[in-house]
Amino acid sequence: MNIRLYNARILTMEKNKDVFRGEVWIKNDKIAYVAGEDELAQEWDRKAFPRIAWDIEIDCKDNLLMPGFKNAHTHSGMTFLRSYADDVPLQEWLNEKIFPMEAKLTPEDIYELTKLAILEYLTSGITSIFDMYLTPDTIADACMDMGMRCVLVSGLNNFSSSPEQVEEEFLKFNKKNSLISYQLGFHAEYTCSKELLYKVAQLAHRYRTPVYAHMAETAREVEECKARYGMTPAVFLDSLGMFEFGGGGFHCVHMTEQDMEVFRKRRMHVITNPASNLKLASGIAPIAEYERRKIPVAIGTDGPASNNCLDMFREMFLVSGLSKVRENDAASVDAMRVLRMATVHGAKAMRLNKADTLSKGKYADIIMIDLHQPNMQPIHNIPKNLVYSGSKANVLMTMVNGKILYRNGEFNVGESPEQIYQKCDKIVKRMLSE
Amino acid sequence: MNIRLYNARILTMEKNKDVFRGEVWIKNDKIAYVAGEDELAQEWDRKAFPRIAWDIEIDCKDNLLMPGFKNAHTHSGMTFLRSYADDVPLQEWLNEKIFPMEAKLTPEDIYELTKLAILEYLTSGITSIFDMYLTPDTIADACMDMGMRCVLVSGLNNFSSSPEQVEEEFLKFNKKNSLISYQLGFHAEYTCSKELLYKVAQLAHRYRTPVYAHMAETAREVEECKARYGMTPAVFLDSLGMFEFGGGGFHCVHMTEQDMEVFRKRRMHVITNPASNLKLASGIAPIAEYERRKIPVAIGTDGPASNNCLDMFREMFLVSGLSKVRENDAASVDAMRVLRMATVHGAKAMRLNKADTLSKGKYADIIMIDLHQPNMQPIHNIPKNLVYSGSKANVLMTMVNGKILYRNGEFNVGESPEQIYQKCDKIVKRMLSE
Repeated sequence: MNIRLYNARILTMEKNKDVFRGEVWIKNDKIAYVAGEDELAQEWDRKAFPRIAWDIEIDCKDNLLMPGFKNAHTHSGMTFLRSYADDVPLQEWLNEKIFPMEAKLTPEDIYELTKLAILEYLTSGITSIFDMYLTPDTIADACMDMGMRCVLVSGLNNFSSSPEQVEEEFLKFNKKNSLISYQLGFHAEYTCSKELLYKVAQLAHRYRTPVYAHMAETAREVEECKARYGMTPAVFLDSLGMFEFGGGGFHCVHMTEQDMEVFRKRRMHVITNPASNLKLASGIAPIAEYERRKIPVAIGTDGPASNNCLDMFREMFLVSGLSKVRENDAASVDAMRVLRMATVHGAKAMRLNKADTLSKGKYADIIMIDLHQPNMQPIHNIPKNLVYSGSKANVLMTMVNGKILYRNGEFNVGESPEQIYQKCDKIVKRMLSE
Repeated sequence: MNIRLYNARILTMEKNKDVFRGEVWIKNDKIAYVAGEDELAQEWDRKAFPRIAWDIEIDCKDNLLMPGFKNAHTHSGMTFLRSYADDVPLQEWLNEKIFPMEAKLTPEDIYELTKLAILEYLTSGITSIFDMYLTPDTIADACMDMGMRCVLVSGLNNFSSSPEQVEEEFLKFNKKNSLISYQLGFHAEYTCSKELLYKVAQLAHRYRTPVYAHMAETAREVEECKARYGMTPAVFLDSLGMFEFGGGGFHCVHMTEQDMEVFRKRRMHVITNPASNLKLASGIAPIAEYERRKIPVAIGTDGPASNNCLDMFREMFLVSGLSKVRENDAASVDAMRVLRMATVHGAKAMRLNKADTLSKGKYADIIMIDLHQPNMQPIHNIPKNLVYSGSKANVLMTMVNGKILYRNGEFNVGESPEQIYQKCDKIVKRMLSE
């Protein structure tokens, strides 16, 4: 399949490269050519262009092409809990609302519920997800059936999965296909025994691979870990040899100097989830501190039970806005840094090194942003427009792996949205009646 | 013009009334009839329905009708500064970026720039605005020409306008037409001399009318007022007799117990602008405190130079999310309270008593929300879906004063968006070159 996207503005997210006008060619799942107007004019006649039989040609009408957003932390299958339990204290939310409902889930339910989340990701220009939820098999199936790029990460804890199962999944999903990969992980320090955590660390060493987990999301979690082990979560986990090959922490709201030193030393990623941290009253993560220490930050939506939407535009505004108010400095964490977090750093955190920038040879995970809407006018500065003023309504097209999955409000994912809604609705009704 | 909106879910925002299924009839600028399915079936045959010649009938396809959002604080004309000066400290932003550019504005510029803002309001379901900017005449013209409901409020200060001019405007715009009204106001304590403020208070007494101003936006503003007068802004202004007939404060981030007591006693409105307060690092307003004291809270976007978008969905999420994190309580300021702020309290703050709820006899300022998008599924709770998960992309229709100004992404405002963009672009280019 040869696709030509022409008459575009292009933001490659390569370092120090400004927006330019040009076009992008896609051959199957990869970006084959990216060229500015000048370059294009030179190459046009003498090279490939006249000989290519285009399957699809799209006039971008001076709209923006850029790499899709990387949602570096989510629990897609939790769509069934959106707006089911809000405005209640955290412990009540977890113990009385979330856990009893989750106990009723089947793998088939998670397949359908993940599909609902994928529809929403596409509307927000999200082209890959770092998904920690209960049944990696049916999550992978949902992603492959719809064409979504997904990095699975184990949510191993004392109550579900096992190190043996995690190892099996690690080996299986990393050779599945180019859309699916798998990283070692566990839910969190407070849901895993020390013995279990040792076994994860052993796996990390056996495969020389990074490990990911929820970390320092709440002040209470940190206090309880200190009471248990005399150390904060990052320091304690590192003491087990967990992060010898890197990894990352989801949330990282309440981090000490020592925790940050672990992250810096181990080249780990912070994956921040600002909307979820507000909604569950967890706190405001010290993003500017991480930046000062050169700890790379990626961005996640967290799951739809706690956020409740899956919208990278909301998260991007929050990363910058909350940093500004936290640091009492309107210059803190500027728009371009946030865009890098949502794209390049996200890809790095998820080890998607071929899906980070809009460049020749990379996976064609590309979005088109409508600059002809009032919230994008006038065009003083496109990155700032995106981060401070952008919304889902600006996403004209979402392409994953060279396939256009969403365009002009229509989905191309093998099934109609209404069919997916109906199946999810049926699941929800069954669970509520059980 | 008779319009019938049928097959809808309806959220009237009347007290203690849940969402129900039914239809809404509009006759000219007013809501003529709102009925649930049961009621409708009874009245259908024997009453008005068969005799009405509908000009427009819209099948709402089970989507939601509700009152439009009230943007209770904005400076619409500042669209020319969107993404022009971000990520810089507040004083530099104001003195080196904003003021020099504003000095180049003409009344005709403000007409066009306000039109750009109105386009964006419509995409976000905003049906009326409380607009403080330099030239009320051309702001009113832009609103009337496009069909937007606007409450003008004077931004009087030591450098622009005068009490005489404010009085003249007050008298002129309050008899203009049903789309335009005018409230007394001044920019802020720190930009007005005591003599000038006395004159505003005298006007308030003469016309027995409320007064509005920026108040306690930054900690510095409060400190400087205390240094000048030995009182915080709300207490000082109240000591001049300013609020004998009520009024409101824009921002109200840094309020003392005494300030809140002034607001409670004078039945004043807090108008909160959370996105702007983050982006300019002003702080997080104590919304839960206001709620506890029964001080009514309305919501504004502030102007596009400081926000930068004009999106009531983002503001609504922030009002709740920031309160939760500020109070360390995930139950703080629930979704339904936020929806009331964005509609009913907004209308009360702006003295738009006929535009608050979706009820018979009220102005037909109605929006339709798409529930058939993935971020609105499943439907456990519509108010929570709206506040925590909603976005501009869910706005299917925006009707003001009985006229459909925006529907399915298309505007019906007498001019194409591209024409407005081009005019604004020309203005910006001229200003940058001057």
